Amino acid sequence: MTPSSNGAAHAIIALPQPYLLFLGDVTEPGFAKTAIGLRDWAPEHCIGEWALPAATVSTGLPSMTPAQAYAAGARSLVIGVANQGGTILPGWIPSLLEAMEQGLDLVSGMHQVLANIPELAEAAARLDRRLISVRVPPPGIPVANGRKRSGKRVLTVGTDCALGKKYTALGLVKGLRARGVDADFRATGQTGILIAGGGLPMDAMVADFSAGAAEQLSPDAAHDHWDVIEGQGSLFHPAYAGVTLGLLHGSQPDVFVVCHQPGRAHVLGYPDYPLPSIEDVIDLTVRLGSRTNPAIRCAGVSLNTHGMSTEAALAACAEVSSRLGLPAGDPMRAETGFEHVVEACIA
Amino acid sequence: MTPSSNGAAHAIIALPQPYLLFLGDVTEPGFAKTAIGLRDWAPEHCIGEWALPAATVSTGLPSMTPAQAYAAGARSLVIGVANQGGTILPGWIPSLLEAMEQGLDLVSGMHQVLANIPELAEAAARLDRRLISVRVPPPGIPVANGRKRSGKRVLTVGTDCALGKKYTALGLVKGLRARGVDADFRATGQTGILIAGGGLPMDAMVADFSAGAAEQLSPDAAHDHWDVIEGQGSLFHPAYAGVTLGLLHGSQPDVFVVCHQPGRAHVLGYPDYPLPSIEDVIDLTVRLGSRTNPAIRCAGVSLNTHGMSTEAALAACAEVSSRLGLPAGDPMRAETGFEHVVEACIA
Repeated sequence: MTPSSNGAAHAIIALPQPYLLFLGDVTEPGFAKTAIGLRDWAPEHCIGEWALPAATVSTGLPSMTPAQAYAAGARSLVIGVANQGGTILPGWIPSLLEAMEQGLDLVSGMHQVLANIPELAEAAARLDRRLISVRVPPPGIPVANGRKRSGKRVLTVGTDCALGKKYTALGLVKGLRARGVDADFRATGQTGILIAGGGLPMDAMVADFSAGAAEQLSPDAAHDHWDVIEGQGSLFHPAYAGVTLGLLHGSQPDVFVVCHQPGRAHVLGYPDYPLPSIEDVIDLTVRLGSRTNPAIRCAGVSLNTHGMSTEAALAACAEVSSRLGLPAGDPMRAETGFEHVVEACIA
Repeated sequence: MTPSSNGAAHAIIALPQPYLLFLGDVTEPGFAKTAIGLRDWAPEHCIGEWALPAATVSTGLPSMTPAQAYAAGARSLVIGVANQGGTILPGWIPSLLEAMEQGLDLVSGMHQVLANIPELAEAAARLDRRLISVRVPPPGIPVANGRKRSGKRVLTVGTDCALGKKYTALGLVKGLRARGVDADFRATGQTGILIAGGGLPMDAMVADFSAGAAEQLSPDAAHDHWDVIEGQGSLFHPAYAGVTLGLLHGSQPDVFVVCHQPGRAHVLGYPDYPLPSIEDVIDLTVRLGSRTNPAIRCAGVSLNTHGMSTEAALAACAEVSSRLGLPAGDPMRAETGFEHVVEACIA
């Protein structure tokens, strides 16, 4: 085990904002999902878009050159494309160099690391620009110290991966702010980090530092401040449960919300692993989470009812809610009463 | 989360053996603990020792130059010093270069990475030698697939860090082999990897790959073969529980042995965290471990009675054994009946 270290006081990724969204030469809306997600979830940080002539997809934001965007206040160019393989295409390089020449830092959520592309590294050094790959953890993350921090925290957990923990956290922040509560979204995956303008990629941390990273992510705060932390994985996932537990321990949540997709019977990609019940997730999260916060409790359930009729979605929420005696709703469908989950967090 | 990947069939560190143990200029026996541990636990892999003239500590193994050791069969020089800071001292470099010239690869468990020292990297490239830092995970570790593997596995778990999980695993291997059982030690920390001649440094893995690394570490084996896996951390540790859970899930142990030090009341370095009871550890290990191996069971308890009188050690083992209805013993003290723990593993 790595010896304890004080490390940096608050080592997390922080992105220069606002953003100019780069669309490359994308012609398939699915591959522009990063840009579209940013437009939907962080419109206040997106000043415009910029695309190559071949692109046919638009976010609907104003089209700007890097020079125009810089003059309008933009401080980074975010690669808004999520292609297969996660690679920076050679045809984009001249545009990325132009953005740097005009004063913008570069930000990417792709697998390929910006700093490993020699032309970009050379220009960044020459122009004193930053190349930020949000999948790369920053240096200086300490080992967890386990000390109870001030402020309030809610963590989204799940019966599995990829069923809405990020959108649930975003929905909770929105609902809390609408009630006048001071709340921040704390991102733990690449898309969330782009939306939040900062965070830590939990799945890329060296294992010894997972809980320490979670501690850095939601530092001491005012007594009535809420950090809403994006969950990762599942305590029942045969590959990722360790990540989930490190995040749970380091987050020290006062409250958690369980995310689930009705009808999902097995862990995604693991047909031999039946999905745990929501009850199982509540019970195990309380048991493990109480190690670092004995007051932990479940506020409610977030159901991902994507693809279901309104009737079926309402019925699913009602069934879960009556079975568990907890509010249940879908943050993407106002009619399902997700506001009751928000209210239960701060109750 | 990182997408599933097939990765390499069996990506673990494998060290060239036998070893020549390098003692540098060590004058403090405590700083030679790596060499002394190797002499004690892997004598069949240690062909001799080599020290600078200023050294005053010896392992008692024959003194040999690299040329003599190579001629006698040695294939690597292992840095047997564990100084404060874990750094390769400049005064050692000429000796390390000489060892490479004479045909030996270099192996180190220190924090400083051998390949980051330019003189060594240059010589390794020129002479086609390997520079192996056992704290650096090898490439190609896949995400866990959760598939049940053939063969039998025992994992050592603990109420805390640093209370005997490695020595317990080594004691189990010794006891199993003495009973004619085909058994291998599977190392998960730097000292264990040097002793075993291979393994994976679990605490240095990227978190998404922790369980996958554990799967690689104990691959499919014969029906009656036992892998004895060195545990790490504790499920109750505020910083390292995620590492422990990834190792538990990926190891899929049939059996586990709980390691504990009588009298330890708090997590080492975390005075606000009371140590869990052995019963707590058994209960939580069964609950979490059953996700990947529903047949998991506790075979017994390994007590670290270092510093206790024989009487007190025997009394502690008897008390734990009668309280839990399970065998309990200290692998470092034959009189405590550790053989009953070994027998309970294969019962």
